[in-house]
Amino acid sequence: MKFYDCKTAPSPRRVRIFMAEKGIEIETVQIDLGKGEQFGDAFRAVNPDCVVPALQLDDGSCISEVLAICDYLEAQHPEPALLGTTNEERAQILMWTVKVEQQGLLSVADAFRNAAKGLKERAATGLIGYPQIPQLAERGRGRVEQFFRRLDDQLVDKEFVAGDRYSIADIAAMVVVDFSAWIKLTLPEDVVNTRRWYESVSARPSAQA
Amino acid sequence: MKFYDCKTAPSPRRVRIFMAEKGIEIETVQIDLGKGEQFGDAFRAVNPDCVVPALQLDDGSCISEVLAICDYLEAQHPEPALLGTTNEERAQILMWTVKVEQQGLLSVADAFRNAAKGLKERAATGLIGYPQIPQLAERGRGRVEQFFRRLDDQLVDKEFVAGDRYSIADIAAMVVVDFSAWIKLTLPEDVVNTRRWYESVSARPSAQA
Repeated sequence: MKFYDCKTAPSPRRVRIFMAEKGIEIETVQIDLGKGEQFGDAFRAVNPDCVVPALQLDDGSCISEVLAICDYLEAQHPEPALLGTTNEERAQILMWTVKVEQQGLLSVADAFRNAAKGLKERAATGLIGYPQIPQLAERGRGRVEQFFRRLDDQLVDKEFVAGDRYSIADIAAMVVVDFSAWIKLTLPEDVVNTRRWYESVSARPSAQA
Repeated sequence: MKFYDCKTAPSPRRVRIFMAEKGIEIETVQIDLGKGEQFGDAFRAVNPDCVVPALQLDDGSCISEVLAICDYLEAQHPEPALLGTTNEERAQILMWTVKVEQQGLLSVADAFRNAAKGLKERAATGLIGYPQIPQLAERGRGRVEQFFRRLDDQLVDKEFVAGDRYSIADIAAMVVVDFSAWIKLTLPEDVVNTRRWYESVSARPSAQA
């Protein structure tokens, strides 16, 4: 297998943390997003959507999208379980992972991509460029803060995002918090549950990945 | 179990089709999105994100997000398999389901919610309203067409979206095509593979759900 990564990007980091938790090591290829390597013929043959991460299997087929990659690796390396051990636990983890992606990660991405100087005509990922929409950057910032508060409500009586066990939902949410530093947003003082949780998950050795 | 539905909305339809394919029947509660029932106290206790579908289990806990609901129901009703039978097949299905949601469904939603007369201050789902961004509606339309072409490339040599078996990725993508009629977008004449596939999946009895 080959893992297509970009050391500085938030989405592949989710998979790196996942692999660190499980002690999985896979041959890794760095794709230089700053230089546009994701748009080159070589990487487009791996993932036509021009985004990392991607996992190439030995038969040449390719899995992209973080959730699909993690689910595949979990099947091969079940321990420690990061996608739940019962159907009910798994459902909460999947549900929260989707919520974190759609409410958190996409909001930071909206805020970042629609304001960053280097992405004026690249406000959406993929080969076709789209011009920035400043209003969308502003809306993204509002939605990121809304997400931090949503998470705070969830964490009032739970140790982790999807319940009492560390999971891919925590990885996704921690990456959202760190990604939001790119747009100079930090956790508000009053989201005390989110802050307590963030401190805890960030102290895990895997967070260095 | 109780299934929270809205007969006219695209997202819960994905679960209805899934249940029809498997012959699952669950007590169903209709939530009137037009009248704002999703923002009422009763439904917010079910899903604080104020969106359908949601599946309430007998212990009172709740699963929202289509992927999480379908994965949970698949574990309870494995046949016919709609999330794959091997790890590799499952990875392709999950990958494509995420792609269809993020490239297709969210693009139609951007185009619809940022232009519909009745949603002027509700351009994003959830309790907190956001004003419409006309440029985002326009970008959404562009990305929907881009998605149809992406799908067309994928379907050149495949019967279904994620391979040679009908799956939740087909359900999601079919719902995107039907949802795009809300914004008066139809499949371009030249996406012949997507048109062939759409005709085939729409002819299944489950498509009436």
